[in-house]
Amino acid sequence: MSLAAGREYLAIPGPSVVPDRVLRAMHRASPNIYEGSLLEMAPTIQADLKRVARTEGDCAIYIANGHGAWEAALSNTMSRGDAVLVLATGRFALGWSEVARRLGLEVEVIDFGKRADADLDRVAEALKGDAAHRFKAVLTVQTDTASSVRNDIPGLRRVLDDAGHPALLMVDCIACLACDRFEMDAWGVDVTVAASQKGLMTPPGLSFVWFNKKAAQARETADLATFYWDWQPRAEPAEFYQFFGGTAPTHHLFGLRESLDMIFEEGLENVWDRHATLARAVWAAFEAWGADGPLELNIADPAKRSHAVTAVRVGGPQGTEIRRWVMDNAGLTLGIGLGMAEKSSPEWHNFFRIAHMGHVNAHMVLGALGSIQASLKAVGVPHGPGALDAAAEVCAGG
Amino acid sequence: MSLAAGREYLAIPGPSVVPDRVLRAMHRASPNIYEGSLLEMAPTIQADLKRVARTEGDCAIYIANGHGAWEAALSNTMSRGDAVLVLATGRFALGWSEVARRLGLEVEVIDFGKRADADLDRVAEALKGDAAHRFKAVLTVQTDTASSVRNDIPGLRRVLDDAGHPALLMVDCIACLACDRFEMDAWGVDVTVAASQKGLMTPPGLSFVWFNKKAAQARETADLATFYWDWQPRAEPAEFYQFFGGTAPTHHLFGLRESLDMIFEEGLENVWDRHATLARAVWAAFEAWGADGPLELNIADPAKRSHAVTAVRVGGPQGTEIRRWVMDNAGLTLGIGLGMAEKSSPEWHNFFRIAHMGHVNAHMVLGALGSIQASLKAVGVPHGPGALDAAAEVCAGG
Amino acid sequence: MSLAAGREYLAIPGPSVVPDRVLRAMHRASPNIYEGSLLEMAPTIQADLKRVARTEGDCAIYIANGHGAWEAALSNTMSRGDAVLVLATGRFALGWSEVARRLGLEVEVIDFGKRADADLDRVAEALKGDAAHRFKAVLTVQTDTASSVRNDIPGLRRVLDDAGHPALLMVDCIACLACDRFEMDAWGVDVTVAASQKGLMTPPGLSFVWFNKKAAQARETADLATFYWDWQPRAEPAEFYQFFGGTAPTHHLFGLRESLDMIFEEGLENVWDRHATLARAVWAAFEAWGADGPLELNIADPAKRSHAVTAVRVGGPQGTEIRRWVMDNAGLTLGIGLGMAEKSSPEWHNFFRIAHMGHVNAHMVLGALGSIQASLKAVGVPHGPGALDAAAEVCAGG
Amino acid sequence: MSLAAGREYLAIPGPSVVPDRVLRAMHRASPNIYEGSLLEMAPTIQADLKRVARTEGDCAIYIANGHGAWEAALSNTMSRGDAVLVLATGRFALGWSEVARRLGLEVEVIDFGKRADADLDRVAEALKGDAAHRFKAVLTVQTDTASSVRNDIPGLRRVLDDAGHPALLMVDCIACLACDRFEMDAWGVDVTVAASQKGLMTPPGLSFVWFNKKAAQARETADLATFYWDWQPRAEPAEFYQFFGGTAPTHHLFGLRESLDMIFEEGLENVWDRHATLARAVWAAFEAWGADGPLELNIADPAKRSHAVTAVRVGGPQGTEIRRWVMDNAGLTLGIGLGMAEKSSPEWHNFFRIAHMGHVNAHMVLGALGSIQASLKAVGVPHGPGALDAAAEVCAGG
Repeated sequence: MSLAAGREYLAIPGPSVVPDRVLRAMHRASPNIYEGSLLEMAPTIQADLKRVARTEGDCAIYIANGHGAWEAALSNTMSRGDAVLVLATGRFALGWSEVARRLGLEVEVIDFGKRADADLDRVAEALKGDAAHRFKAVLTVQTDTASSVRNDIPGLRRVLDDAGHPALLMVDCIACLACDRFEMDAWGVDVTVAASQKGLMTPPGLSFVWFNKKAAQARETADLATFYWDWQPRAEPAEFYQFFGGTAPTHHLFGLRESLDMIFEEGLENVWDRHATLARAVWAAFEAWGADGPLELNIADPAKRSHAVTAVRVGGPQGTEIRRWVMDNAGLTLGIGLGMAEKSSPEWHNFFRIAHMGHVNAHMVLGALGSIQASLKAVGVPHGPGALDAAAEVCAGG
Repeated sequence: MSLAAGREYLAIPGPSVVPDRVLRAMHRASPNIYEGSLLEMAPTIQADLKRVARTEGDCAIYIANGHGAWEAALSNTMSRGDAVLVLATGRFALGWSEVARRLGLEVEVIDFGKRADADLDRVAEALKGDAAHRFKAVLTVQTDTASSVRNDIPGLRRVLDDAGHPALLMVDCIACLACDRFEMDAWGVDVTVAASQKGLMTPPGLSFVWFNKKAAQARETADLATFYWDWQPRAEPAEFYQFFGGTAPTHHLFGLRESLDMIFEEGLENVWDRHATLARAVWAAFEAWGADGPLELNIADPAKRSHAVTAVRVGGPQGTEIRRWVMDNAGLTLGIGLGMAEKSSPEWHNFFRIAHMGHVNAHMVLGALGSIQASLKAVGVPHGPGALDAAAEVCAGG
Repeated sequence: MSLAAGREYLAIPGPSVVPDRVLRAMHRASPNIYEGSLLEMAPTIQADLKRVARTEGDCAIYIANGHGAWEAALSNTMSRGDAVLVLATGRFALGWSEVARRLGLEVEVIDFGKRADADLDRVAEALKGDAAHRFKAVLTVQTDTASSVRNDIPGLRRVLDDAGHPALLMVDCIACLACDRFEMDAWGVDVTVAASQKGLMTPPGLSFVWFNKKAAQARETADLATFYWDWQPRAEPAEFYQFFGGTAPTHHLFGLRESLDMIFEEGLENVWDRHATLARAVWAAFEAWGADGPLELNIADPAKRSHAVTAVRVGGPQGTEIRRWVMDNAGLTLGIGLGMAEKSSPEWHNFFRIAHMGHVNAHMVLGALGSIQASLKAVGVPHGPGALDAAAEVCAGG
Repeated sequence: MSLAAGREYLAIPGPSVVPDRVLRAMHRASPNIYEGSLLEMAPTIQADLKRVARTEGDCAIYIANGHGAWEAALSNTMSRGDAVLVLATGRFALGWSEVARRLGLEVEVIDFGKRADADLDRVAEALKGDAAHRFKAVLTVQTDTASSVRNDIPGLRRVLDDAGHPALLMVDCIACLACDRFEMDAWGVDVTVAASQKGLMTPPGLSFVWFNKKAAQARETADLATFYWDWQPRAEPAEFYQFFGGTAPTHHLFGLRESLDMIFEEGLENVWDRHATLARAVWAAFEAWGADGPLELNIADPAKRSHAVTAVRVGGPQGTEIRRWVMDNAGLTLGIGLGMAEKSSPEWHNFFRIAHMGHVNAHMVLGALGSIQASLKAVGVPHGPGALDAAAEVCAGG
């Protein structure tokens, strides 16, 4: 007998839960791509994507996943041989750096480990060491999906400004756009990258690059911009097909239109607050569990934690057992630990992650925590008391 | 700001959550109703409905809700002026008695109140008092959706047998088929009534009557059987349309086929066990909350509680506040108290119900309990500690 | 090799093609049935159903197919032993008469055969012969789905009025509501019956009875009205559940809401005109084919033909071959001939029907005719020339 | 009044009609991307894509539209400054040449105009003129979606072989894969490019590149291969995410799995035959219309016409009127003429296209032709007789 046979909750950090409204919007006949409502809809999506990123800059939509958007961001601003400074705080900035290397860029990585955000002093120092302004861009993630750390983006802007360094500030918000507060213009971000399948609640298949005037200027001299990645015609298309560098992603657009409607019906500030509160509920539970036993949040400082995903260290191989138990017995799928240990090593099983991004409410989060509590008991992982009460209290406004 | 904006969980006692598989199966073009796969599918549905009710008797499918099935069960077995004995243990047997009265039957009701099951001794006494065998049938629900009591069906069979009374034993399983264990043949039930929208996880619109040979004989002399309610051609159709007394409920059939597949893929015994365990988890939480405060389960004896739905007494008007809070703040919809007080009275707000029927797993139930815990805090209802831990422990197999 | 592998067109006379909008509206989670948007939606559906039937009378919605609505119409107006006059013009009024008989009514049938509408003179004569006003109602279909004849409803009203006969005029519009023009109040119809799965473009499972004040008065003395069929609380519910005599047909309601929106977005007069024109296109083709060969429209007089369905006589067993060919080679499903010959007889294969009801446009109808033309060639049925040109010309406004 | 209000048929040359089965398969919750059924499904898709292209070579799947696949094909085989020979037979090879230019390649175009396929002699001559083997590849489309011409791919192979020229033969089959016969290995194609939204019947968003060993060798020295376009890890992934260079296109994969199942259930040879026959039906109609009036097929020689799309010349501005009429009055959407005239010129209106690709059957095609016939009448375009009869006769096997 299993208690799993109900509606499953996929709490991996992306793809996130796709709302019924979005799935329903995508279940339709192919539309005409030469005239009609689709052509009127595309500019509204572009406009709302700018609202989500809090920018009056430009936005290019790509049929691609996040790796494609990484490549797009660099292709439009760099030439072969240019150098970039990458701030690694988990796994994903390293992924971006690999894309950069493959484009023929020189990559310098500062690795802050897997449990901390980018140290602003070390970044300042690195920029100071680059008097020649070799670095054309600083690449960072806002939230690292693997470590669940959240970097201080306004702080990085200050560091760049203080150093008088002209490098572009490029931020990957894939894991947390529309989850963690993000204000592209106010924070001085030059290029932002995101994708459809997390806070935007739409199946994977679309990614986005926002860019300001300074980045647009970099485009003038970049020799890496190809037809497909060129953001200029996508941002300001003369013909409809240029929005997408070819055939439009018809069904995804209907889905994304619906998810953006949901975000603005709720209110972006409310969306951020909801994520913040649900994240605090999750942390409260793990802190209670961890008070007596091996469970530990990967990021110690709450101010550095993402509101979209939480990485957990189990202290032993029960990470996998917990994941397996909740999947087989509760209808809950947790995320694997990513980038924390080699897949072939025993330590690989010491981690898991729980996502709380996008279409997520108190019922879903409290059910996930309750399921984990049951698994701790069933699997036999020592843990402190009061976790679920603490989480519920946060949800109650406590 | 609200924490409700995610996938909502409708925990009212019917309609229950419709699985994605079922909805997907219903999303299709109309099929031919004169030949092809639909005609082959209908008998498999009928056969599996018998497996669900654990009977080798017959099964008639109606396009109707449960009230229609009530009327069908009586129409096929009764003539105007016949008498029936109704065992009231909440609200729904009373509803059935109203249908009976409108058919021109004489109705005698024994009312066991709203917090107890049918007392077998009183039933025995009533049957003893009917030496003339005026009662053609004893009508009862297995689970009363309003009170959440569960009646002792095998016990009623024994009482009838002990009294040597020939009345048909007619059981309404609408609220709990495929949730609470039910064994039509082994338990000596003559007529069983159920509907699609609870344990069978399909939208409202279909209901079912199972009947054994004795009931089929009653049909021979019943003068109330109309064309639409006649169960004979539905149970043994010579033509396809006779399954449904006219046009087939095409889309519902595709949905029901899928839900029956899900039940037998899981295994009916496993389905029952899942419901039993999840019900115990719910009770454990409410018992802990009730240990210090006004919350109280409507049915005191666990052996008399349904595994499909739980009625709760709040002791004050916060029942409505709790329901409102979880709907507005957690994405959870609880059921109103039904039949416990007049809708216009202040007491109407003193109750709520939580369903745990059909497509429901540990994640959903623990999330619902966590949400209620948050509401108790937010609304300010005193409650004992340890409720969520107790529920999780039950789910852990404790 | 087959040319069938594309989107299939089901051109049987019900269930009709369900629009994507309707299917999408039905693909959703179960709603709360005690408060919220569903409760606000139900009265709008009832109101729009009255607009479709062109009446200011009442409307009761049933979870049932058309056979259920037949039973409902009679139950609310008749007592055991009452007599009704049935005008048979194919198969379906005969079906209604069977329902009447099973309710204990005396039934007198005038059979006008399978190729003609009800002759008003014979009806007048029958009424004149009923000086005692034994007939409580005259039962007729507007369109007979089997013969595809359309009766003259205003004419029947005149006959009743001329005879000074008080019988209720009851009209079954199942096959043609929202296809053929129908004006319940202006035409003096007392009781109208219809269902969801034809002109209303929603899956089978709902049926409807409209009734005027005179019929409502008959309800006062009818002894057949049961709880389920009672139209009074459904028409004027004090509680939401009374709309449906129990649990609401949640998903069907979302679908029906959408289909009614579609009808009124197009305009009911436009809907009727569309059906009239498409029917003329179909007839034009068959008349051309029939000019040289055995194909013949079942109803000779265009003024007597329904705009929703067309019955065809093939003159030999190629009816079945044609149906088989278009299904296997063109993706088109035609209706079988119904009620024209015994299923076991060779003549059973001499007929087919083509529906053009509900969600149907010129492309679908012209494609169906083109497919039939191909089948005539492939199967080897002699036929006159110019059929497709004639049909296209009608669609062109010619 | 309009005759359009039914199921619309989108007969533009992509996106094509998405089958209900595919849409239904895509309407589902997000799956886990780290384990489970999705991971088992991806290799089966890759394998079946190879069967569709008739190759034992490799296949890389991209989240991108066809323009992305063009870029991928070149990126994996070319270095900056390499030269390619482009055979322009409409618009799309020119599009590919623009992508090539933007990658820094030298592009030589032979333009065969808009009404002819690539002349093999001229190609032979061009290759002979390239004794230095400057051309690293010959780029061509199999079917040009704009002109609807179909090039002779085996012929091009022979020309290359005869010239002893080592250039890769790269073929864009976007418009016609799984419509027009294509045999990658047997025909000696080195690189094939296609996308999801035409013959593969899945919404836009995926594209594909197949490559043989020779092309794989070119990859060794190509300096343009970026992370995102690199086909090697996609073709032979060590980790699941490498199939897609990052997050998997979850919902598209479920759709594509279903469409591939449909293709192989029907049989690829049958699919090709169906397209060939339906194309002949379309041509037969246009030839009859054109016999007396201005309508003319863009490609005169049937052997050079694609089986997926047909471009039509109207001889005056009624092309747009015809398209408008069938959309507004019949529920049919035809494609605009593409690349035949400047959008701002009066001649732009002289063209239209009709697609017959993917999920298309005789009913759909004959309905489209019937609708066009009605439009010719309504708009007032002179035309010859017998078009619909001729098309139906082709469908009948004539």
